[in-house]
Amino acid sequence: MTTSQAYLDLEVRFRRLNAVEGAMAILNWDRSTNMPPGSAEDRGEQMAALGVIAHEIISAPQVGDLLDAAAESADRLDAWQAANLREMRRAWIHATALSPALVEAMARATTRCEMAWREARPHNDYVGLKPHLQAVLDLVRETAQAKADRLGVSPYDALLDQFEPDGRAARIDVLFAELESFLPDLLQRVLERQAALPEPLPLPGPFPVEAQRRLGVEMMKAVGFDFTKGRLDVSAHPFTGGTPDDVRLTTRYDEADFARALMAVLHETGHGMYEAGLPAEWRHQPVGKARGMVLHESQSLLLEMQACRSRAFVIFAAPRMRAAFGGVGPAWDADNILRLYTAVRPGFIRVDADEVTYPLHVILRYRLERAMIAGDLSLDDLPAAWNDGMQRSLGIRPPDDAQGCLQDIHWPDGAWGYFPTYTLGALAAAQLFQAANAADPAIEPGLAKGDFAPLYRWLRHNVHGKGASLSTDALLREATGAPLQSAAFRRHLERRYLQG
Amino acid sequence: MTTSQAYLDLEVRFRRLNAVEGAMAILNWDRSTNMPPGSAEDRGEQMAALGVIAHEIISAPQVGDLLDAAAESADRLDAWQAANLREMRRAWIHATALSPALVEAMARATTRCEMAWREARPHNDYVGLKPHLQAVLDLVRETAQAKADRLGVSPYDALLDQFEPDGRAARIDVLFAELESFLPDLLQRVLERQAALPEPLPLPGPFPVEAQRRLGVEMMKAVGFDFTKGRLDVSAHPFTGGTPDDVRLTTRYDEADFARALMAVLHETGHGMYEAGLPAEWRHQPVGKARGMVLHESQSLLLEMQACRSRAFVIFAAPRMRAAFGGVGPAWDADNILRLYTAVRPGFIRVDADEVTYPLHVILRYRLERAMIAGDLSLDDLPAAWNDGMQRSLGIRPPDDAQGCLQDIHWPDGAWGYFPTYTLGALAAAQLFQAANAADPAIEPGLAKGDFAPLYRWLRHNVHGKGASLSTDALLREATGAPLQSAAFRRHLERRYLQG
Repeated sequence: MTTSQAYLDLEVRFRRLNAVEGAMAILNWDRSTNMPPGSAEDRGEQMAALGVIAHEIISAPQVGDLLDAAAESADRLDAWQAANLREMRRAWIHATALSPALVEAMARATTRCEMAWREARPHNDYVGLKPHLQAVLDLVRETAQAKADRLGVSPYDALLDQFEPDGRAARIDVLFAELESFLPDLLQRVLERQAALPEPLPLPGPFPVEAQRRLGVEMMKAVGFDFTKGRLDVSAHPFTGGTPDDVRLTTRYDEADFARALMAVLHETGHGMYEAGLPAEWRHQPVGKARGMVLHESQSLLLEMQACRSRAFVIFAAPRMRAAFGGVGPAWDADNILRLYTAVRPGFIRVDADEVTYPLHVILRYRLERAMIAGDLSLDDLPAAWNDGMQRSLGIRPPDDAQGCLQDIHWPDGAWGYFPTYTLGALAAAQLFQAANAADPAIEPGLAKGDFAPLYRWLRHNVHGKGASLSTDALLREATGAPLQSAAFRRHLERRYLQG
Repeated sequence: MTTSQAYLDLEVRFRRLNAVEGAMAILNWDRSTNMPPGSAEDRGEQMAALGVIAHEIISAPQVGDLLDAAAESADRLDAWQAANLREMRRAWIHATALSPALVEAMARATTRCEMAWREARPHNDYVGLKPHLQAVLDLVRETAQAKADRLGVSPYDALLDQFEPDGRAARIDVLFAELESFLPDLLQRVLERQAALPEPLPLPGPFPVEAQRRLGVEMMKAVGFDFTKGRLDVSAHPFTGGTPDDVRLTTRYDEADFARALMAVLHETGHGMYEAGLPAEWRHQPVGKARGMVLHESQSLLLEMQACRSRAFVIFAAPRMRAAFGGVGPAWDADNILRLYTAVRPGFIRVDADEVTYPLHVILRYRLERAMIAGDLSLDDLPAAWNDGMQRSLGIRPPDDAQGCLQDIHWPDGAWGYFPTYTLGALAAAQLFQAANAADPAIEPGLAKGDFAPLYRWLRHNVHGKGASLSTDALLREATGAPLQSAAFRRHLERRYLQG
């Protein structure tokens, strides 16, 4: 049997789409790292033009017919091709579900709202943001409904599907309820345990940027990052950009605190290793891309939280940190550094949260955004609902909206349905790390020597190399024996924070 | 009268084309400055896809009809719109004159030949290069004929038109004959004059890269380069890339010799100032682009050669150079530095040549490539013809082809018809610089204070701001009172090298 002509035609189109998207990824990275400030309008014009071209490629009138024709002769496709066809259709639905007018209105509204948010947050001005946020919310609800109609799912699930294909609120509800059943009590016990010990010693700075950069590169090399197909640069906010064959990581440096930049580097390196490990033979096709944001976040958290805040890794890293900055004294002992890196403290700001309290921040946002999408919570009532939620889950009440519902860019930016992937990623990270260690006992001793090869051998085979061929749950079932669960995460927290 | 719909439709298409080409320019810059070596294939795929998309935009079936329709109602266009329409047609002819098969064959042949050249040059292996160069030459001749048919000019003029619109060999012949009538004698007198003086003192290094970079940036700022819309970076070969609103200059540093990098920076800054000064209201249209390579090269040479090797500028720059590198002693006196920067010596290598001998290198290449395009010179006879030509014009004979006909990338790369623009640019630079100084007596005293504002005020008004609205000769006539001539260049050389 020969592969159908329709399918092969689609592969040509999606290969071209992938090249345009890759070009956009590099230009986007350049915008955050190199672009002079006065060139923003010029770059905006380029990005808009390429965005329109990418949309034209995927929404060309023939694509729908080709997808149907390829589906009719799907028996001629092998498993990867069939999965590729499925992912092509998903991308096509997302690209064609919205009218051009809605797409344009959303782009305008989010740009305006993001600008308003940058003004409003430092001035604690929720009232100033509200009309802009209302405009975004209205359009997000319209988007959710339009995509829900095409995907045959609920509006919120349609939003989820943009970031986590096949993600379902019903499943998230169960997992988050499990977390809520044990996290508050666990948090209380961790806080009591840490309070009974003397404070860890602070590491005395300053830490010169160049020494931080060198240490970061040394750690990236230990992890196995391929610098012949990637870079490390500086941007205002750390991110992983570029393409699987040209991975562009960024971090930012603070001379008073090297751990922040280093942990950001390790976090982004986890993302970058996933990208670089995607199946080479499917580089240019939808099935060759990362599965979704849950697995992506699982890979950054697996490296940063599971591997690099472990006792084994800190034993390897502590003397290298000391050497990098010429450190002296007991503050540089592995034990002290490990305690610094695993300190738990409830706070108002999500991005500063430790791994014990982080899920509670996410669950709050998930509940609130679901209610807003459903029309059950108005923006007028958001600040109070936020503060009440913080009071209930973390026992602290934000003194103002800047430390409350104004802190995140996601809603102004239109990324509704994104928040839950952070915590689902943390669950997946724990589940994968435990399965990996069970499968290969050399992994943990490797970390203590800075040898990540056993860990990444397992991840390449069980996660990265699968691309988007399986759903997140199917991949986890093959790799760990179970779909996404909260048990491994709970075990991880108990071991590290109550028994470690 | 309203502007015709056809014309407005064309503006929309060319604006999109400009955005895609701008994206390609940034990606191309990234390839030379940032891209990891293992990412070349990925970038090749992106550039090829964008190249095809750009070609599709300009060669869409409607474009020819729109050009005709807009021409029919050309009386509704103002002067800039009419010039824009003319440049649209020129771009369209160049884009559509060749069959896709010929374009693809040329891309393959030049890629292969460039690779062979990189092998052949260090091994002095002309015989190894020859078959690859023959393949390129055959395709270039085919290209020249195809474009000649569409443009209604000779094949060589059609090649010229790619780099210098409306460039004509008949005019070049006259100008180059004038140069040949006085240059050999002038060179002889300069050599005798310089030989009668003691050798200038060498500047003692090393010169740390960071100090060189800071000095380069200081000089760029003095010239008026806008760092809010541009950057300076490092690449293997200096170039000016990016877009008029995002000018990306590069240089390379040699710790033993800072003048090379500094002069490269000033040369590229001249290119960059031209780009940045192009008419803002025509940013996205063909008429808003640089006129061609003659004026482009005139702007780099005007800054590097006319302004920055002048006594006035060196008086400003010498103490800053001394301060940048902590220099001591008489080698750092302005007089000595000026003599170093205006030393003349016949040599084999074009890119190392001074401004007196440079035109003789170019004239040789121009004569040889015209003969090869005409079929009057075979590749078998090229090395001997080259060496005989060097003997005749510069009185020296290359000891091998590596220092002879193998030295340049242009022919392997397919850039036939490019060489003359270097020397035509040098003539234009002298002509413009003399006219500028005659028009504004504040220009030269300004250079002695590092104040380039008067010079660039004149250039913005008379050159940069014209974009591609005029032919090179028409622009020069408006700016200097005469079309391109050799007189100003001759006067410049005589003043600097025989009277200075």
